[in-house]
Amino acid sequence: MSVLTQVPQTKLKVGILGATGTVGQRFIQLLADHPYFEIHVLAASSRSAGKPYAQVTKWKQQTLIPDHIATKIVQECAVDAPGMRECAVIFSGLDSDVADIIEPALRQAELVVFSNAKSYRRDPIVPLMVPLVNTDHFSVVPHQRKTLSLEKGYIVTNANCSTTGLVVPLAALERAFGPLQTVLVTTLQAISGAGYPGVSSMDIIDNVVPYIGSEEEKIEWETSKILGGVLPDQTGFEYHASSPLTVSAHCNRVPVIDGHLACVSIKFSRQPAPSAEEIRSALEAYVCEAQEIEQSLPGMVPSAPKRAIVYHEGQDRPQPRLDRDLENGACVSVGRIRKCNVLDVKFVTLVDNVRLGAATSSVINAEVGVAKGFIV
Amino acid sequence: MSVLTQVPQTKLKVGILGATGTVGQRFIQLLADHPYFEIHVLAASSRSAGKPYAQVTKWKQQTLIPDHIATKIVQECAVDAPGMRECAVIFSGLDSDVADIIEPALRQAELVVFSNAKSYRRDPIVPLMVPLVNTDHFSVVPHQRKTLSLEKGYIVTNANCSTTGLVVPLAALERAFGPLQTVLVTTLQAISGAGYPGVSSMDIIDNVVPYIGSEEEKIEWETSKILGGVLPDQTGFEYHASSPLTVSAHCNRVPVIDGHLACVSIKFSRQPAPSAEEIRSALEAYVCEAQEIEQSLPGMVPSAPKRAIVYHEGQDRPQPRLDRDLENGACVSVGRIRKCNVLDVKFVTLVDNVRLGAATSSVINAEVGVAKGFIV
Amino acid sequence: MSVLTQVPQTKLKVGILGATGTVGQRFIQLLADHPYFEIHVLAASSRSAGKPYAQVTKWKQQTLIPDHIATKIVQECAVDAPGMRECAVIFSGLDSDVADIIEPALRQAELVVFSNAKSYRRDPIVPLMVPLVNTDHFSVVPHQRKTLSLEKGYIVTNANCSTTGLVVPLAALERAFGPLQTVLVTTLQAISGAGYPGVSSMDIIDNVVPYIGSEEEKIEWETSKILGGVLPDQTGFEYHASSPLTVSAHCNRVPVIDGHLACVSIKFSRQPAPSAEEIRSALEAYVCEAQEIEQSLPGMVPSAPKRAIVYHEGQDRPQPRLDRDLENGACVSVGRIRKCNVLDVKFVTLVDNVRLGAATSSVINAEVGVAKGFIV
Amino acid sequence: MSVLTQVPQTKLKVGILGATGTVGQRFIQLLADHPYFEIHVLAASSRSAGKPYAQVTKWKQQTLIPDHIATKIVQECAVDAPGMRECAVIFSGLDSDVADIIEPALRQAELVVFSNAKSYRRDPIVPLMVPLVNTDHFSVVPHQRKTLSLEKGYIVTNANCSTTGLVVPLAALERAFGPLQTVLVTTLQAISGAGYPGVSSMDIIDNVVPYIGSEEEKIEWETSKILGGVLPDQTGFEYHASSPLTVSAHCNRVPVIDGHLACVSIKFSRQPAPSAEEIRSALEAYVCEAQEIEQSLPGMVPSAPKRAIVYHEGQDRPQPRLDRDLENGACVSVGRIRKCNVLDVKFVTLVDNVRLGAATSSVINAEVGVAKGFIV
Repeated sequence: MSVLTQVPQTKLKVGILGATGTVGQRFIQLLADHPYFEIHVLAASSRSAGKPYAQVTKWKQQTLIPDHIATKIVQECAVDAPGMRECAVIFSGLDSDVADIIEPALRQAELVVFSNAKSYRRDPIVPLMVPLVNTDHFSVVPHQRKTLSLEKGYIVTNANCSTTGLVVPLAALERAFGPLQTVLVTTLQAISGAGYPGVSSMDIIDNVVPYIGSEEEKIEWETSKILGGVLPDQTGFEYHASSPLTVSAHCNRVPVIDGHLACVSIKFSRQPAPSAEEIRSALEAYVCEAQEIEQSLPGMVPSAPKRAIVYHEGQDRPQPRLDRDLENGACVSVGRIRKCNVLDVKFVTLVDNVRLGAATSSVINAEVGVAKGFIV
Repeated sequence: MSVLTQVPQTKLKVGILGATGTVGQRFIQLLADHPYFEIHVLAASSRSAGKPYAQVTKWKQQTLIPDHIATKIVQECAVDAPGMRECAVIFSGLDSDVADIIEPALRQAELVVFSNAKSYRRDPIVPLMVPLVNTDHFSVVPHQRKTLSLEKGYIVTNANCSTTGLVVPLAALERAFGPLQTVLVTTLQAISGAGYPGVSSMDIIDNVVPYIGSEEEKIEWETSKILGGVLPDQTGFEYHASSPLTVSAHCNRVPVIDGHLACVSIKFSRQPAPSAEEIRSALEAYVCEAQEIEQSLPGMVPSAPKRAIVYHEGQDRPQPRLDRDLENGACVSVGRIRKCNVLDVKFVTLVDNVRLGAATSSVINAEVGVAKGFIV
Repeated sequence: MSVLTQVPQTKLKVGILGATGTVGQRFIQLLADHPYFEIHVLAASSRSAGKPYAQVTKWKQQTLIPDHIATKIVQECAVDAPGMRECAVIFSGLDSDVADIIEPALRQAELVVFSNAKSYRRDPIVPLMVPLVNTDHFSVVPHQRKTLSLEKGYIVTNANCSTTGLVVPLAALERAFGPLQTVLVTTLQAISGAGYPGVSSMDIIDNVVPYIGSEEEKIEWETSKILGGVLPDQTGFEYHASSPLTVSAHCNRVPVIDGHLACVSIKFSRQPAPSAEEIRSALEAYVCEAQEIEQSLPGMVPSAPKRAIVYHEGQDRPQPRLDRDLENGACVSVGRIRKCNVLDVKFVTLVDNVRLGAATSSVINAEVGVAKGFIV
Repeated sequence: MSVLTQVPQTKLKVGILGATGTVGQRFIQLLADHPYFEIHVLAASSRSAGKPYAQVTKWKQQTLIPDHIATKIVQECAVDAPGMRECAVIFSGLDSDVADIIEPALRQAELVVFSNAKSYRRDPIVPLMVPLVNTDHFSVVPHQRKTLSLEKGYIVTNANCSTTGLVVPLAALERAFGPLQTVLVTTLQAISGAGYPGVSSMDIIDNVVPYIGSEEEKIEWETSKILGGVLPDQTGFEYHASSPLTVSAHCNRVPVIDGHLACVSIKFSRQPAPSAEEIRSALEAYVCEAQEIEQSLPGMVPSAPKRAIVYHEGQDRPQPRLDRDLENGACVSVGRIRKCNVLDVKFVTLVDNVRLGAATSSVINAEVGVAKGFIV
C-alpha cells in the first residue's frame, strides 16, 4: 500500500461530533495542539448549538479549556452545519442512538467519519480498528465506498474500551506464537467508561458492580473481528474464522476514575504453550504499523506510543492510578505473566479507557489514514 | 455421630487470642451476647497485657465496645494466662507468625483452638473447615488427638476469606451434580481482608491492585481439601483426589471496606453440564449440616444463617455494599448464573470476608463442635 | 399540653409519598415494623402507580425490601388515591417541586402531612421541627388549622439534614448557657443527601466539591426559626428575634455514603463563655421532650434515641463511617470541644443525614404528635 | 538587594535528603530536568544507603523513575556522604525527628539547607518562607550565619502544606487592603499530606477524619510569621506583631489523593471591608517577587507559576481533582468569594499539597535564593 512520503504541510480541518461529552472533551485535548489536524467544527446537540463551547460544556478535564476552543461557537451535528463539509475527517464521540443516524448521513455526503460509537462496529464493510493492532483493515475501505457508490466517504470505527486493552497483547501473542484458542477475561473497569454523569456515586463508593450492560458481548464478539484478518479480495473481514477463537468475559465496574484493568487467562492452539519468559519477550518486541510509519517518517503518526506494550516488573503492577499515564495514555500495560492451572497462561493488562480506549484510538487511526492516503 | 439433644444450659467460657485486632474485634461483636458462649479471656500481645481492653485497642467497628468488654483486663497469649485453662474453646485471630507457636502450645495443654490463622490449614491431621460446607471433617479430630497423645486438645482451622466465598456454592453444585473439573476465579477483595492499618489509602483510592500476596495459592490449594472428603478410616482427608479439581485464581484488591466478590467460571465432570436454571435451584436448595442441626434443635447453632446461599435476581447483583449484611454476614450471595463460552457456566459470588470469611466461620464451627460433643 | 396516657392500642394507618426515592426507602425501613404505625399507602409518580413496589423501585438499602412491601401496589400521590384519606398521617419524601402542590392539597383534604421537603419550611404558620429540639412548636398547629379553616389537616416540616445536625447541640447549649450570638459552620456532607442518582461518581471520587446549591442559605435561615420560640399567643414563631443569632455556613460535598460532619465555631452572648468542660456536661445532660415522653410512657415515642447527643472522647471523633449508626441513626454525635481563637469555642458534630436528618425526624415528630393528640 | 543579571550557565549540584519518601520523590520529579540544578546526591536512611535508588524506593508517582536516577546509588544523610559537601543546596524531605539533628549538622558544615521539615520553622533566626509570599525573609540569612559564626551555611524552611494554601491569598489581600484581623479556616486535606503508607484505607474510605495531629496549631502559628515582616535591623521577624492577627483552624482529612481545600472566613482591620469584586481583582492582580524576578530575567525562577493565584468563576470551584494541576501545581486556586455573615468575607482555596505545599516551595525558594546570590 502506498504511503505518504511527507508529513502534511498544511493543516487538515477536522470536526468533532459530541464535542461537549466525555469523549469529545478528550478529542479536544488531543487535537487542540495537533501538528497537522486543526479543529474546525465543534458539533453537539441542538440544545448547545449556536453558543460558545465553554458556555454549554461541563468541562471535567484536569487541564483548562484551550482559549480558542472556549469561545468557538458549537454547531449542530448535521451535514449542513457551517464548516462541516470542509472537514477532511470527522471524529465522532456520539452516543450510539444518535450515531446510528448521523454517521451514515455524513458518510453519504462524502465525509470521512472516525467513530467511537458502537453503531457500525459489526457492519461487514466497516473496519473495527484498534490502532495498535489492525490498521491493515483500511484495505476494506475501497470496498465500503464502492458498495455505497461513494467517492470519498467512509466510516471507520474503533473498538470498545475494554476490548482495546485486551486485543493489543493478544495480537502480539498471535503474531509470535500463532492462533489462540480460548480467552477468559475478567475486567475491572473505570467509571469514566460510562460517561458523565454516568455512574451514580451511590452505586460505586465502597462498592463494585459486577455488571456492565452489553460489555461482555462486545468483548466476546469484537475480539474475533479485530484479530481476524481481511478477506483475500478485500471485500470484508475474516473474523478469526480459520482458527476459531472462543472468548468469555466477566465485566465489573470499580471505583477508579480512568483505566480498565483486566485479568486474562489464555490457551494457545500450539502446544506446548510458550513460556512466561517467551511471552514477555514477545510482548516487549511487539511493534505495530502505526509505530513503523512513525519511525520511518517522524511526525506522520505523532500520537502513536513509543512502546505499544509496556511490561511491568513489579508483582503488583500494572495499577490504574499509577500506570494509566504512560505513553500519554496510548499504550497497553501488561504484568504478572504466569502459569494458569486451567488454561495455559494468565496475566494482567491495563488500558486508559478514555485515551487509547476511545479518543486516542480514533486519532491514531486517522493519522494512519492520512499516511495511507485515506484522508486528504 | 451423636449430637447433643439439648442446648447448653450453662455458659461455656471462651478465650479470644488477638483480641485487639480486626478479627478479634469481630469475635467480640459476635460473642459478647452469645446465648451460650461467654467471653472469659481476652488475650493479645504482651504490650497490651495488663491493661483494660478499651485502652489498648483501636476499635474500628460501627458499634461501640460492649461495656463489660471495655474494662476487661487483657491477658498475654499464653497457656498460663489467668483463666486460659478454664476456657472450653479458644478462638484465635492471631497472625500466622504468632499462631505458629501459640496454637500448638495451647493444644498441647489440652485446650481446644478454633483458628483463623493459616498456620495449620495444610496440616494433614487438622480440619480446614468452612462451616457451611464440611463440618463432617470433625471426624478426624479423634485421630489428631491420638496422634499427639492428647485427651482433649485439638485445633480446627477455618479457610482463607476468599476461599470461603468460593467453596460454598461449589459444594452445593458438587452435591447436586457431581464433581467439578475446573474452576477459574477472579476475586475483587475488600481492604478489611488485610487488617488494620493494612492497605495504605495511597495505594487504593482511585485504584485497584492486581495482587495479594499468597492469596492465589491459598484459593487454589484450600479448595481441594475443603471439598474433598474424609478418608474411610478417618485418619485424614481425601483432597478431592479421586476426581482431581483444578483451580486457577486471579486476586485483586479493590476500594471496598468489607465483602469479597468473585467472578467464577466452572466446568463439570458430567457432560452435558446442568443448565443455569438447574444450578440456581441447586444453590437455593442447599442446606448444610450446621443448618440442619439448628433446625432440629433451635438455639444449638444460633449463628448459622437461615439461607446458606442467597440467590439474587438483579442482573447487577450481588454487590458488596448492598448485600454483605444479609443473614448477618453469615451467608454467601450468588448471582448472574449464565453460560461460559470457555468453561461451562459462570456466576458471581460475594462473601463478607470479616464475618463468614473469618470470625463467623470459627464461631459456627465451634457451635457445631458443641453440638457434636467436641467442646464440653 | 395534654399528652396521651396510653400507647395506641390499634395501629394508625400511614401513607408514604415519594416511596420509591431515597427518603421514601428510609421511611419504609423505619415504619415496616413500627409498633403502632402501619404502612397503608405507598405513593409515587404516575409512572410507578399501579405496579408492585419492588418492580418500580431501585432499592438501594443494605436490607432487603420487607416482603409485604415488595408486593404492595404503588398509588399516585393524590388525595383520591385508594386508601389515602384513611391515613392518620402522611409522610412526605417528595422533591419540593412536587411537594409544593401535593402537600397543601392533602392538607386541604383534612389530612396530616409530615414533610421532608423544603417547600413550607419558611411558611409562618407551619412548624419547622427538629424532633430533638422544638416539638413545642406543635402549639402553632391550631393556628394553622384555624387560618385555613380546617378541622384536622395541617403540615409539619422537618429541617434540612445539615441544619439538623447543627441545631441539636446549639439547642442544648442555649438551654444551659443562654442565647448564642454567632455561629460559623463548615459542613462535610455525604452524597446520600443528594438522593439517587444524585452526585455523579465522576465528580466525587478523589475529590470534594465546595458547593451545594442553596444549602448554606438553608442552614443560615432555618437555625433561627428552629431555635427561636413560639409567639406568646401561639400564632407563629419568634425566629430568635429577641437575641439575634448570626449564622454563616460553608457547605462541601465529600465522598462519604451517609453522615454529615460539621466543624462549628460559636460565640455566646454571655461572657465569659462557658468552659469546654461545662459545654461537654451540658451536651451530655441534654434531654428533649421526645425523650421525656418516652421515659414517662415507654413505647410512646419508640424512635427517640436514648441519648440525644453522644459525646466522643477520642480526639479524632466523631467520624461518619464509625459513628453514624449510634442510636440507630437518631442521635447527634459531638466531639473535639476546644477553645476557638476567633469566636469562643469550636467542636465537631455528626448527624446521619438520611435518618435523623430526614426520615427519622419525621417519624419522631409524628410519634410526639400522636402523644400530644395531634394525630388520631 | 542585588540580584543576578544572568541565569546560571553551569549547573548547580543539589542533594536530596529523604529521597525515597513522598516529598523526596516529588523533589526528583521537579529537579530531574531542571535547567540549572542537577541532582548530585540522593540521601536516605542507612537501610537504603549503598543501593540503587530504584531498588530501595516504593515509587508511587504517575511517571516512571527517570533512568539516570533509577540506577544512582543512595547515600546516607550525613555531612561526609560522598558528594554531599559539593552540593550548592540540599533539599530536605526528612521527617522532623531526623531533620532535628541532620539539618543543623549540615548547616554547621557550611551547607545550605532548604527544608520541608517542621523542625526549625519556629526558630527566630530561620526564615519560614512561602515562595509566593515572603521571599524577602532571605534578608535574615546573614544574621543567621553571623549568629552561628558561619560563612555560607544556613537553613530556610518552607511552611506546612495547609498553611501555604491559606497565606498566599491572605498576603494578596493584606497587600491590597491592609492588615487582616481574624481568620477562621476549615481544611479538607488530602491523604498524601500524611506520606506513605500514611493514612490507612480502613480509616478514610467512606469516611472523613476531623483531626490531623498538630495541624491546627501549625496553621494558627505559622501564618503570623509568614505574613509578618522582617525587623528593621534584619535580625529576625515581626510576627504580625504591630497588628495582631488571630487565626483559628479546624483540620479534616478527606479521601482525596492530592490537593488541600480550605474554607476561609476573614475580617479586615479596615472597615468597611472591601467588596467581593475588589477582593477578586486584588487576588488576580497579585504578583510576587519570584514572579517579578522571572519576568525580568526569564529562566531565573523557572518553577514560579505564571499566575500565583488563579480565580475560578464556577460556583463549585476550585475542586482538588480538577484544579490541582494548574500551573504545574505551583499556584493557589481561589473561588466562591462572598459575604460572610459572621466575619466580613468568605472564600475557598486549593493548594497542591505535595507540590506548592511541599517540594515546589523549596525549589522556588532556592531559585530565588540563586537569583539573590544566597546559593552559589
